[in-house]
Amino acid sequence: MEKDNLLVIHGGGPTAVMNASLWGVLGEAAAHGEIDRVYGAVGGTAGLLDQQLADLTAMPAGQRQLLPVTPGTVLGSSRTPLGPEEYEKIAHVLAQKNIRWVLCNGGNGTMDTCGKIYQACRRRGMELGVMGIPKTMDNDLAATDHAPGFGSAARYMAGSVAELSADLRSLPIHVVVLEAMGRNAGWVTAASALAADSGLPGPDLIYLPERDFEEERFLADVEKLIRSKGCGLVVASEGLHDAAGKPIVQPVFQTGRSVYFGDVSAHLAQLITRKLGYKSRAEKPGLLGRASIAWQSPLDREEAALAGKLAVKAALEGQSGKMVSFRRLSTDPYKMEPELVDIAQVMLHERKMPPEFINQAGNGVTAAFMDWCRPLLGGSLPRMSNWNP
Amino acid sequence: MEKDNLLVIHGGGPTAVMNASLWGVLGEAAAHGEIDRVYGAVGGTAGLLDQQLADLTAMPAGQRQLLPVTPGTVLGSSRTPLGPEEYEKIAHVLAQKNIRWVLCNGGNGTMDTCGKIYQACRRRGMELGVMGIPKTMDNDLAATDHAPGFGSAARYMAGSVAELSADLRSLPIHVVVLEAMGRNAGWVTAASALAADSGLPGPDLIYLPERDFEEERFLADVEKLIRSKGCGLVVASEGLHDAAGKPIVQPVFQTGRSVYFGDVSAHLAQLITRKLGYKSRAEKPGLLGRASIAWQSPLDREEAALAGKLAVKAALEGQSGKMVSFRRLSTDPYKMEPELVDIAQVMLHERKMPPEFINQAGNGVTAAFMDWCRPLLGGSLPRMSNWNP
Repeated sequence: MEKDNLLVIHGGGPTAVMNASLWGVLGEAAAHGEIDRVYGAVGGTAGLLDQQLADLTAMPAGQRQLLPVTPGTVLGSSRTPLGPEEYEKIAHVLAQKNIRWVLCNGGNGTMDTCGKIYQACRRRGMELGVMGIPKTMDNDLAATDHAPGFGSAARYMAGSVAELSADLRSLPIHVVVLEAMGRNAGWVTAASALAADSGLPGPDLIYLPERDFEEERFLADVEKLIRSKGCGLVVASEGLHDAAGKPIVQPVFQTGRSVYFGDVSAHLAQLITRKLGYKSRAEKPGLLGRASIAWQSPLDREEAALAGKLAVKAALEGQSGKMVSFRRLSTDPYKMEPELVDIAQVMLHERKMPPEFINQAGNGVTAAFMDWCRPLLGGSLPRMSNWNP
Repeated sequence: MEKDNLLVIHGGGPTAVMNASLWGVLGEAAAHGEIDRVYGAVGGTAGLLDQQLADLTAMPAGQRQLLPVTPGTVLGSSRTPLGPEEYEKIAHVLAQKNIRWVLCNGGNGTMDTCGKIYQACRRRGMELGVMGIPKTMDNDLAATDHAPGFGSAARYMAGSVAELSADLRSLPIHVVVLEAMGRNAGWVTAASALAADSGLPGPDLIYLPERDFEEERFLADVEKLIRSKGCGLVVASEGLHDAAGKPIVQPVFQTGRSVYFGDVSAHLAQLITRKLGYKSRAEKPGLLGRASIAWQSPLDREEAALAGKLAVKAALEGQSGKMVSFRRLSTDPYKMEPELVDIAQVMLHERKMPPEFINQAGNGVTAAFMDWCRPLLGGSLPRMSNWNP
């Protein structure tokens, strides 16, 4: 009798720890004799439709041990939404390859895909164990305290802003506007506030997509900052929009679900320069913020591996249509308990920052947010001198 | 009799290791009983004119030991050019404070200042030991193989591009254009080629300010790249200009010696999108690239400290009007010998990349450049998985 196989699919934009989850999957799968092959969908569901499956069981040990410290995804990913016919075709491929368990690693779009693969297989009478592994650098995934990928993006943002803050103290001649990823949710932008844990000042102003952006208020905030301090550090989300929901920058290019906009940071820096007459620079590390191993959070890496491992276990135990989720038991000391949640709770839901994490003026975060976020950075930021001559 | 004092002045934009040089100065100065106080000009020469001197002898040990891992400069810096009257005023302040030795840490602008302070003091008959400590993230300083600050900026660029390359392999749907600092010299931009040492592909195309930018050739390069590979990673200098020397982006703001331009990366990404119809993203880490401790080169940090130490030694030995410089004896294994060069050789000279470091097509670097640059990164880049399914 042919033995059963397990398939891993990666979906959406990658993170710094997506391969760490894959490493967790491979380690756990190796401990289960009932799994014959572990396949990876090369290039995500798009590759799966073309039957592009890689045999991960054959990955050399040297490459496998590098997975936890390799950003992106070695399997490749896709973000094309699929139609009903394509789900039928996927069910067909799975049957053909004797795939009994499917693990989908991704965000809310991928969890939607995950749920639909589950349904398509059920319609065919296939008994498939489908499990979701949470992933998002944005932290906009519902039904979990946080998702793998966020902690590293948060650590990158906090650490980079601390370094920028030290640089800005040297030659305090302008306003620097730094742009953070996360179009609809401000978690990563907000994490910049943790820069203050390095001993240096954190950002002076933080603008989140959870609040409508008002140009006049922004300019008044900056004017006040310059008058009191002479310079300033502003962190802004790439997804800032006005009260009507319209992005404050123009779209440059659109394709499928993806729209490419002009840079928010450049736009704000030019506003400061043109309307207030102050020197201003814009910086936008962009994708670097989700790919940084230099700033990878050790906790994030461990939790990503754990999520992969638990997804295998749950699938082998007969669970299906569920996602591994993290429930926080305590913040100080940090205690987390993984659990399983129905994928339907997660599919295409978007989790934004709650009001208690945003300050009254809408230009900063609260101590409650910083306390919530701090443990996810996976250890203190490196200390820097804050000596004042 | 009053004892003699030593003064440190920081000039120009900071780097990731400017404070490491200061740490070297303080350590060496402590070993010389003939120095009473070590002063720091708070805010560079601008602060010196206002007699803002900090007593660095009083810096707490805990802060001092953080200097090598703190980017920017704890003293503060300035980049305002000074006139003859101001040099006279500085000579007056130095006499008043009984300053016998002056160390100027900076790039070619600062070495110019350094030389002029020396001359102003000589006109007053003061016997002043003036020494330059080299510093530039751009590596455009003349009369030295390289300058402290560059190795760390190079390591940041190589490491970040490797991470970006891993990210881009995951979802190869577009061209990413990354902007590097260095307006007139392409050293930092070129260092991105070392990303390939991580095991992942380096940039596909590199555009340096040493070559005139031709839009048609650039678009043809990108078109060819997309046709062969489907996606691509382009690294471009912030200082690209046309054959007439005119920057390819418009100035946004100008003040004194500083001109703020629009972003080259955003401009090139929009060209690709609008003229070729391919999705393209622009990233611009900007100042993060000169402030990163996460990517600080250990060799750069050591050489920066050494330069500070040797500047003190030379000044105490009666040298003046000189800069510490690095002469490379061998590349593999890396061997460097510090020496002293006349400041006049350095003042306002700008060192660009020589032709043998740039490829024939003007869109990449040569193996000779990579060999020259590699040791300055201070150790191998972290390895990443380059497994291909």
